[in-house]
Amino acid sequence: MSNDEWAKRDASVVWHGFTQMDSYTENSPIVVDRTDGRYVIDTEGRRYFDAISSLWVTTLGHRVPELDDALIAQLQRGAHTTLLGNGNTIVVELSEALAKVVPVDEPHFLYASDGASAVEQALKIAFQFWVNRDIAGKTTFLGFGGAYHGDTIGALSLGGGGFGTSIFDPLRFPVLRAPEFADPTCFNVACRMITDHAHELAAVIIEPLVQGASGMQMCAPEDLQRLASACNTHDVLLICDEIATGFGRTGTLFASELAGIRPDLLCLGKGMTAGYLPMSATAASGAVFNAFLGPDLSEKTLYHGHSYSGNALAAAVALRHLELIEAWDVLENVRERSQELEQLLDDRIAPLTQVRETRVRGLMSGIDLAPPRDGLRWGRKASAGAVARGVLIRPIGDTVILMPPLTVTSEELHSTVRALHDSIAELGDA
Amino acid sequence: MSNDEWAKRDASVVWHGFTQMDSYTENSPIVVDRTDGRYVIDTEGRRYFDAISSLWVTTLGHRVPELDDALIAQLQRGAHTTLLGNGNTIVVELSEALAKVVPVDEPHFLYASDGASAVEQALKIAFQFWVNRDIAGKTTFLGFGGAYHGDTIGALSLGGGGFGTSIFDPLRFPVLRAPEFADPTCFNVACRMITDHAHELAAVIIEPLVQGASGMQMCAPEDLQRLASACNTHDVLLICDEIATGFGRTGTLFASELAGIRPDLLCLGKGMTAGYLPMSATAASGAVFNAFLGPDLSEKTLYHGHSYSGNALAAAVALRHLELIEAWDVLENVRERSQELEQLLDDRIAPLTQVRETRVRGLMSGIDLAPPRDGLRWGRKASAGAVARGVLIRPIGDTVILMPPLTVTSEELHSTVRALHDSIAELGDA
Repeated sequence: MSNDEWAKRDASVVWHGFTQMDSYTENSPIVVDRTDGRYVIDTEGRRYFDAISSLWVTTLGHRVPELDDALIAQLQRGAHTTLLGNGNTIVVELSEALAKVVPVDEPHFLYASDGASAVEQALKIAFQFWVNRDIAGKTTFLGFGGAYHGDTIGALSLGGGGFGTSIFDPLRFPVLRAPEFADPTCFNVACRMITDHAHELAAVIIEPLVQGASGMQMCAPEDLQRLASACNTHDVLLICDEIATGFGRTGTLFASELAGIRPDLLCLGKGMTAGYLPMSATAASGAVFNAFLGPDLSEKTLYHGHSYSGNALAAAVALRHLELIEAWDVLENVRERSQELEQLLDDRIAPLTQVRETRVRGLMSGIDLAPPRDGLRWGRKASAGAVARGVLIRPIGDTVILMPPLTVTSEELHSTVRALHDSIAELGDA
Repeated sequence: MSNDEWAKRDASVVWHGFTQMDSYTENSPIVVDRTDGRYVIDTEGRRYFDAISSLWVTTLGHRVPELDDALIAQLQRGAHTTLLGNGNTIVVELSEALAKVVPVDEPHFLYASDGASAVEQALKIAFQFWVNRDIAGKTTFLGFGGAYHGDTIGALSLGGGGFGTSIFDPLRFPVLRAPEFADPTCFNVACRMITDHAHELAAVIIEPLVQGASGMQMCAPEDLQRLASACNTHDVLLICDEIATGFGRTGTLFASELAGIRPDLLCLGKGMTAGYLPMSATAASGAVFNAFLGPDLSEKTLYHGHSYSGNALAAAVALRHLELIEAWDVLENVRERSQELEQLLDDRIAPLTQVRETRVRGLMSGIDLAPPRDGLRWGRKASAGAVARGVLIRPIGDTVILMPPLTVTSEELHSTVRALHDSIAELGDA
């Protein structure tokens, strides 16, 4: 059956996220039949380089034999048992391995599956932390302009809006909002807001180094240090949302490391299972965790939990993934390829008249297109052009995103940038 | 290593949901090493009958060869590719299979992983549905007392509170609240509220037939019919949250079927993957879905999507699960065992002086204990007694929950009730 026929069947029963379904079949969707390393293959056997890591989740590539083996080994012990009031050995082992590498002091891990749920956990923990300590009035949050923390109502409240989500404003709780990263006063203003509003702030939440969904907006490590310092000085919790940046994307295992900061709460997701299975987690520092200890069944308890928290199959893959990142020296590849990507974008993409700016941090990059007027859908067209050339990308508005798997080779970077160059170069005023 | 030693390691790095971690190791937690059919096995080789289906998710049992095979077959094609703007054949196949059996007209399926996310999707879709149709003012929801729809802020807002979650009230959006199911005026009041508030109601949300987390509170199919009729008459959407009741738990594939109702939005989760992997979904009727069609990139689009939406491994298991439910005539077993369980509880449990009431619907049951005074923690003690007798249960307050896998045998029901009888009979005023 042709890809087009599959796309029609697809459109008649599946509702795709962030997708206008009326145009779905016209926007050159790939219906994936199978995968192979860093490539996905459609129902007609066409191969596409997965230049967006299947929306920012795939780290080592698809069908990694070592990960498949870990999954099958766990399958032979059991796919899932509940973590509500009981444990599972593989989850203990994963948590111990994570505890050694996350930039959080004496961490405990509360697991969920969707990234947004990890953010919801963090915000509820931060909120209850002050209640449990009998400190009144610290009931609000500070978020950044352009921030994206997920789509559930709590996560959406912390985020900066955009994507036409303002219609949900009546359901969102209000938060304090610092400027966007691109505003040069951003962190000065944020630090002053922390000083001025410390008495009412439960926590500050930030995507460290790179705001992904706002089109790869970036800030400096020094800015993060100042922010963390202000939080510390004024007794406000710091939540780092590393769902997009975590597990090597920025060149260190976590972006917070590069800035030398240690958040009170850390949100993990996406790359956690190498892109295999849904798993997210909220890591809480010892100081935060301890505030929830008390008599059994007491009000100090966090009454929150998802059915598939600590799924054993996902845990087994996540544990093996951590081992492979180290064994294969994946971070070194990220750093080397990052420099190469930056050079390639400077040399081949930035000079194009259709391009306004390029940004790279690790293997997260954004290319802002410069359409001469609104409504030209250049982001869509550049992506369609790349897909036609065998490179799967998906834009955010008129920003083209490149986020290849962390094991990407030099050759793959070159061919990806070549395809992108050609698809951007053909964009015109029509 | 002993179970106690594992539990200590566990408590030092894992934060368990809905669990007071200070008492975790004292509440006889099982650290599961492996599973076998309807049994879980701890690190010392002790076997426990999984009488709560690993918190209401396991349907056919653990380590089902047919499900394992389906998972491995998909693993050889790829664990996951993104559904944002692209498709995957296994997700199309699953959605087509679901479309044939869900009680929703012309359904489209929007996938997520946590059950709460499916509820968040439903509430956002219901809210935007009226905005897209240019009908102003329909911005609130009607929920029921005692309802539980998940722990993210939107889901928590729809829920009836309890579990000490009132501390999060400042973050919840307000909704209209019908009485609890146990109140004999419940559905009269709910229907009158729909009549009176139709102009401001986006949707009504209900757990059809059985409110799980409130301790298995039940309503009659006729009540659901009246509710659905009131929604239909007054142009208010009906959301059925079948995350707990779906996939056979109540004796039909979905509880809504038994009541003969067809909701506009249906939330699925838990048993969807037979208890193997996190996957949830929101099914929207054709009339709801169509209200989101419009120009590409327009404001009619639902800008919502989770990274692991439509995970291929979970989809493969969910698809095979649907086939096995039919091939094995699982629903017939549910209905037969349900009658048997009801009889056993009537004969053996209800007569105990320590018991106030027992309730059964399909293979969901609640046993209300009657402690002579507060603070005796009878729910905890009855559970610990059952665990010591080789039956894993977890109470909700002083309500003991029995929710065995759908393939439970007559012998397993008898031995479970026997263990429970003995553990309840030894409860005393100390």
